[in-house]
Amino acid sequence: KHFSIAAIPGDGIGPEVMEEGLKTLKRIEELHGGIHFSIDAFDWNCDYYLKHGKMMPENGLEILRDYDVILLGAIGAPSVPDHISVWELILPIRRTFQQYINLRPIKLLRGLDSPLRYKAHDDLDFVVVRENTEGEYSNMGGRIHENTPFELAVQNNVFTRYGTERVIKYAYSLAEKRTKKRLTAATKSNGINHSMPFWDEIVKEVSRNHPSIRTDIYHIDALAAYFITRPEELDVVVGSNLFGDILTDLGAAIVGGLGLAPSGNINPEKTYPSMFEPIHGSAPDIAGKGIANPIAQIWSISLMMEHLGFSEVADLIVDSIEEVLLEGKVSTPDLGGKNTTSEFGSAIHEQMTFK
Amino acid sequence: KHFSIAAIPGDGIGPEVMEEGLKTLKRIEELHGGIHFSIDAFDWNCDYYLKHGKMMPENGLEILRDYDVILLGAIGAPSVPDHISVWELILPIRRTFQQYINLRPIKLLRGLDSPLRYKAHDDLDFVVVRENTEGEYSNMGGRIHENTPFELAVQNNVFTRYGTERVIKYAYSLAEKRTKKRLTAATKSNGINHSMPFWDEIVKEVSRNHPSIRTDIYHIDALAAYFITRPEELDVVVGSNLFGDILTDLGAAIVGGLGLAPSGNINPEKTYPSMFEPIHGSAPDIAGKGIANPIAQIWSISLMMEHLGFSEVADLIVDSIEEVLLEGKVSTPDLGGKNTTSEFGSAIHEQMTFK
Ligand SMILES: CC(C)[C@H](C(=O)O)[C@@H](O)C(=O)O
Ligand SMILES: CC(C)[C@H](C(=O)O)[C@@H](O)C(=O)O
Repeated sequence: KHFSIAAIPGDGIGPEVMEEGLKTLKRIEELHGGIHFSIDAFDWNCDYYLKHGKMMPENGLEILRDYDVILLGAIGAPSVPDHISVWELILPIRRTFQQYINLRPIKLLRGLDSPLRYKAHDDLDFVVVRENTEGEYSNMGGRIHENTPFELAVQNNVFTRYGTERVIKYAYSLAEKRTKKRLTAATKSNGINHSMPFWDEIVKEVSRNHPSIRTDIYHIDALAAYFITRPEELDVVVGSNLFGDILTDLGAAIVGGLGLAPSGNINPEKTYPSMFEPIHGSAPDIAGKGIANPIAQIWSISLMMEHLGFSEVADLIVDSIEEVLLEGKVSTPDLGGKNTTSEFGSAIHEQMTFK
Repeated sequence: KHFSIAAIPGDGIGPEVMEEGLKTLKRIEELHGGIHFSIDAFDWNCDYYLKHGKMMPENGLEILRDYDVILLGAIGAPSVPDHISVWELILPIRRTFQQYINLRPIKLLRGLDSPLRYKAHDDLDFVVVRENTEGEYSNMGGRIHENTPFELAVQNNVFTRYGTERVIKYAYSLAEKRTKKRLTAATKSNGINHSMPFWDEIVKEVSRNHPSIRTDIYHIDALAAYFITRPEELDVVVGSNLFGDILTDLGAAIVGGLGLAPSGNINPEKTYPSMFEPIHGSAPDIAGKGIANPIAQIWSISLMMEHLGFSEVADLIVDSIEEVLLEGKVSTPDLGGKNTTSEFGSAIHEQMTFK
C-alpha cells in the first residue's frame, strides 16, 4: 500500500527529531515490502512567519488535505508569540481536518524507571483521550476598557453536544477494547458551573450504553493528584481540550519525560488526514545541539501506523524502542545518556527487524 | 489579644478534623497567655441544605462578617450536587470577603518521604498563590438549544485588571520575602488566546517593579510536568483560580498527600475575615471512621496564626507536626499508620510546648 505524508519539521528541535522520524519511515519500507511512503516536506514554521507574515501559505490547508497523514515535529520559537504560531498552524489543522481525538498513551516503557517512587512498572499504562477541537481553546472572547483600571478580558469556553458526545463515545469505544474496562472523565463541575456540568451529563448519558465499563468522574484537581498517587487505576482517561492537555504533560512526566511522549490528532472517520506529533514543544534551549530525544517522534509514527491499519508495524516500533532502552547502552542526555539524537535514532532503527 | 472565630465543620470528615483543629486552638490558649479565642460553630453543610433548601441562612454572610477569622473543615456530600454546595457556601465567602489570595504552601514535612523518587527533602518547599475570586470560576454562562443535537454550553472566563493585578502584586511581595527570589506564573496563552495573554501582560508589567525577582512564565501543561521533574526550581508560583487549584492538588500529592495540605483564603487588607481550610474535600469514602488525617486542618491553623501576626505560634504548630512525623510512632492510615484522627491530633498537641 502507498501512503502520502506531509512532513512539517517546524522549529527548534522539530527538524532534529523529524530527521529520525523520516529514517523510521524508510526503515518501515525496507522491512515491509507492502508499504510505500511518498513524503513531501513543508518549511512552515516561525522562520517562514518572519519572512512571509504567516505561518503557512493561504492555501496551506488545501495542500495538506490531499495527504493521507501529516507528520509534525514541533512548532514555536521565541521570535514569534506562541498564540500566533499555534493559532495559525497547529490549531487550524486540528480543527479543519476534524481531528477531534487527541490520543495520548501514557505508558512506562520497559527499561525506564518512573520518577514515582512507589509505582511498579505495570502501574503506568493508560491512555488519555483529549478533546481536540473546541472547549477552552475557543478563540472566542476579547477585551474591553483597555489601558484603564477597568480593563477586562473574557474568554468563552464553548462546549457543544456534538463536540462533546463524539469524543466521549470514542473514549468509551476505546475502553471496550482494553482489559481494565474503566473510563475516567476529568471535570470541574463544582467550580466551573455551566460548561462542566454539561460535560458530566453527556458522560453519564453515553455511559448508559456501556454497562460493562466502570465510569468515574473526577475533578481535574483530584485527578491530577491521582496521576501521582494511584495511576494504576487509570485505563482510559477522557478530558476536555485544556484538561487533556494538562493531564498529558503530567502523564509524560510520570513515565519519564516529555522527550518520550507521542500523540495522534485523529480524524476517526478518515475523511481528512490525521496528524501525528510529539507532545513536547520545540525546546529552544536545547535546539541545534543534536541532543533531543527522538523517541516521542518515532513513537508518534507507531501511532500513525496503527491508524493506517498496520498494528504489527506499530508494535515493532515500540518494542524496538524498549529493546534499546532495556539494553541501556545508547540514550540522550534527558535519560541520563551521552548520545546524540541521531545515534539514539539509529540504535532504534537497527533494532527494528521482523523475526 | 482576643480573636473571634467562626467554625464551620461542614460535611464528611470535616467535623472529624475540625475537632482536632479546635483542640489546637485550645492548646494555643494554654501555651500563650496573651491569646484568647471565642469560637462559634455553625452547622452549615449539606445536611443543612437538605433541611432548609440552602447551604446557610439568608443572613449567613452578614453573620460571618463580624468574626476575625473563619475556620472551615470540608464541604460536600453525595446527596447535594457539588456545584450547589460550593456556589452557595465556599465561593460566596471567598468572594464577598475579598479573599482574593488563596495561599497554599507546598512543603515536604520532615519525617515524610516524597513519592518523587529522585527528589531530596529540600527540593520541595514552595508556595502557590492562587487567584481566588474570578477567572475560570465566573458563574457567567449558560446553555442554548437544550435537548437537541445543537445544544451547547458557554462558560465565560473573566479576568479583570483589578483582580489580576492584585494577586500578582501579592505574589511578588511574597517572593521578595523569600530567599530564592523567583516567581513562576502559570499561563496557557498559546491555546487560550484572549484571557491568558492578558494575564501574561500583567505579570510582565508587575515584574518591572521587582527587578530582583526572576520571573518565569510557563504554560500550565509544562508547569504541571515541572512539579514532577524540577520542583526544586519553584519558589512562589502564581496561578489563576483554576490553574492554582490544579497545581495545588498536584503539589499536595508530591509532598505526601491531600491529608496534609493546608490553605488560607486571605483578604490581605483585613477589611473582612479570612478563611482557613484544608485543601482536601469531605472524603465521603472514609467519613465516620475516625481515620482522617488532621494535619491539613491543624496546619491551616498555623496559616491562620501567621495571618493574625503570631509567627512563633505558627512555626510551633508546624514544628510539632514535624516532630511527631519524625518520631514516626503515631499516624493515620493515609501515611501508613494505624492511629485514629484523634490520637494523631493528640500526639501533635502534646508535642506543642514552648521551650
Ligand atoms: C470545592 C472546590 C470548588 C474548591 C475549588 O476548586 O476552589 C476546592 O477544590 C479547593 O481547592 O478549595
Ligand atoms: C502548542 C499548544 C497549543 C498545544 C496544546 O495545548 O494543544 C500543545 O501544548 C499540545 O499539547 O499539543
